[in-house]
Amino acid sequence: MPRQPLDDTALDTVFRQARTHYGFRPEPVDEATLRQLYDLLKWGPTSMNSQPARYVFVMSEEGKSRLLPALSEANRDKAHEAPVTVIMAVDTRFYEHMPKVFPSSPNARERFAENPETTSDTAWRNGTLQGAYLIIAARMLGLDAGPMSGFDNAMVDEEFFPDGRYKSNFLVNLGTGDPESQRPRGPRLAFEEVAEVV
Amino acid sequence: MPRQPLDDTALDTVFRQARTHYGFRPEPVDEATLRQLYDLLKWGPTSMNSQPARYVFVMSEEGKSRLLPALSEANRDKAHEAPVTVIMAVDTRFYEHMPKVFPSSPNARERFAENPETTSDTAWRNGTLQGAYLIIAARMLGLDAGPMSGFDNAMVDEEFFPDGRYKSNFLVNLGTGDPESQRPRGPRLAFEEVAEVV
Repeated sequence: MPRQPLDDTALDTVFRQARTHYGFRPEPVDEATLRQLYDLLKWGPTSMNSQPARYVFVMSEEGKSRLLPALSEANRDKAHEAPVTVIMAVDTRFYEHMPKVFPSSPNARERFAENPETTSDTAWRNGTLQGAYLIIAARMLGLDAGPMSGFDNAMVDEEFFPDGRYKSNFLVNLGTGDPESQRPRGPRLAFEEVAEVV
Repeated sequence: MPRQPLDDTALDTVFRQARTHYGFRPEPVDEATLRQLYDLLKWGPTSMNSQPARYVFVMSEEGKSRLLPALSEANRDKAHEAPVTVIMAVDTRFYEHMPKVFPSSPNARERFAENPETTSDTAWRNGTLQGAYLIIAARMLGLDAGPMSGFDNAMVDEEFFPDGRYKSNFLVNLGTGDPESQRPRGPRLAFEEVAEVV
C-alpha cells in the first residue's frame, strides 16, 4: 500500500500556493533558523551521498556590500531588502569527503579525482538538487524564498571564493515575503507539452 | 510574523525519514498518479518561469527494454523492478515557449536563442531543480523515489530523443519502496563543514 499523501496544508505550502518572493519584510532571520534549515535540507538525496553544495548565508551589511555589486540592477534591491541571501555554491573538490560520506566505495575519491568531467557533472547536478532542497526546506519551516540567477558569477567567486575551489551556482533570498511585492503567477506548461508515458 | 513550520509528519516524509529506494514492491503506479505528480511539481520555481525539464515516464515492458541496456549493471535491476522509471531530461530549445510562459519579457526568446551558453546553463540548472521537485512531490504524494545517475546518457538520448533536442539528465525510479532493500543511511556533512554566515 502506498502511503497516504500529505495534507493540503503541506502541498499548498511547498508547491501549490508557494510563490517566489521579490520583496521582504524587515523581520530578521536568526542563525539558529539557518542551522535548522540546513539540518532539514541535508537529508535530501545526492549521488553517492556526495553533498557537493556549499552555502554562504549573507546577512550582515558588510556581507551584503560585498555581494550586491555583482548583482543585476533588478536583483540588487531584492537582495538588499532580504534578511538573508544565500550563495548556493559547489565544492569542485567535494570528493575529498567521499571516504567519510560514502565509505562503502573506498576508491570513490580517486575515481572522481581522475575524472574531471564526471566530477564536474556530479558537482553541478547534485549541488543544484541541494539548492532545490534548500528552497523547499525553507518553505516547510515557514520562510519565503526568492531564488535568483541574474548576477555575475565570476565576481561573486572572486570576492567570496578567491582560492577557486568553490564556484557560485545561484542565489536564494530568504525571509518573510511582502505580499505587496508579489507578481502575477506565470502559466505552467501542460503535461502533454512536457511529458510522455511509454 | 513568519508562518508556522509544517508538522513533523511533513518534515519526516519529505526529508528526515525519507530514503532513497533501491528495491520496489510490485504494486503498479497509474497514469493518473503521474499526472497528479506533475500537477504538483510544476509549481516549483524556475528562472524566468522557463520550465526546461522534460519527463519520460517509462512504465511498459517495451519501454523498459529500450532503457535498461543503457544502465550500469548495478542500476538495471532497480529500474526493472520499479513500476516507473522517469527519464528527467532538458529541452535545449525550452526558450521557444518563453512568449507563453514569461510574456512580460517579449524578447526573452531571442535573447536565449542568441546566447547558447546562458541557454545551456539555464536549461541544466533549472531542469535539475525540477528533478528535485519531482523527488519531493513524489514523496509528498506517498510514493518512494530512487534517483540514479549511473547510466550512459548518450545511449538514452539516441534511443529516446533521436532528433537531439532533448538531453537526458538523470533517472528516478518511482513506486512503493521495499524496506528490505534499504541500505544504512550515509552520514551528512556538518553545518560547519559546508556553511558560512557572513
